[in-house]
Amino acid sequence: MTPLDLKGIYGDYLDCLNARRWRDLENYVRPDVEHNGQRIGLGGYREMLEEDVRSIPDLFFKATHLIAEPPFIAARLNFECHPVGTLFGLRVDGKLVRFQENVFYEFTGSLIHKVHSVIDKTGITGQI
Amino acid sequence: MTPLDLKGIYGDYLDCLNARRWRDLENYVRPDVEHNGQRIGLGGYREMLEEDVRSIPDLFFKATHLIAEPPFIAARLNFECHPVGTLFGLRVDGKLVRFQENVFYEFTGSLIHKVHSVIDKTGITGQI
Repeated sequence: MTPLDLKGIYGDYLDCLNARRWRDLENYVRPDVEHNGQRIGLGGYREMLEEDVRSIPDLFFKATHLIAEPPFIAARLNFECHPVGTLFGLRVDGKLVRFQENVFYEFTGSLIHKVHSVIDKTGITGQI
Repeated sequence: MTPLDLKGIYGDYLDCLNARRWRDLENYVRPDVEHNGQRIGLGGYREMLEEDVRSIPDLFFKATHLIAEPPFIAARLNFECHPVGTLFGLRVDGKLVRFQENVFYEFTGSLIHKVHSVIDKTGITGQI
């Protein structure tokens, strides 16, 4: 697996999320996937994403930085979106907000095995 | 510059921070360094670090993940420390807290030019 291979797979994974093709998640995510040290499994991972999209109907995953050194990828994701209701405990009510996520993925073969994510939750405080 | 070269330089940079050798920062950081999109410069960068250490005397930089694809490095830093007074607006008063930073560095030659950092500020809420 070369860095380019891994970036290709990751790009396809983001396309899958952006198209809300939840059934295809299993092509990118291991059944025993871990998120920030918790084994949430593919079902939990899918639920987390579905919940994110309920809160943020126009959620769109776009990497501004993408660094690959197999079996790892690090991505900086930039979100510009209009969450309905509350986000990270803050009342947003459809306003435009921007926030970042810096996230590491560890792959086993072609599947995401461990995710370590940090989201800039406090950054939106000044935007609403 | 190979991934290994860049990791070597970055390891030396963390050693420099952990030894509080602020005068040596110029060996690792460009005079016009940017932090999260703001050109704070070497002076501002040093001030930021000195302020961090005033708030957290036992601040120690340790990477649990380190991914290099020149000219980029992505690091996941794990902090276990005892901040004095407040941290991220929360009253900590010397208690042990753990938090993470996921951070991207863009190098120009051997010097850090742009830093994109996200710190898990909300994660310590449940620890104090």
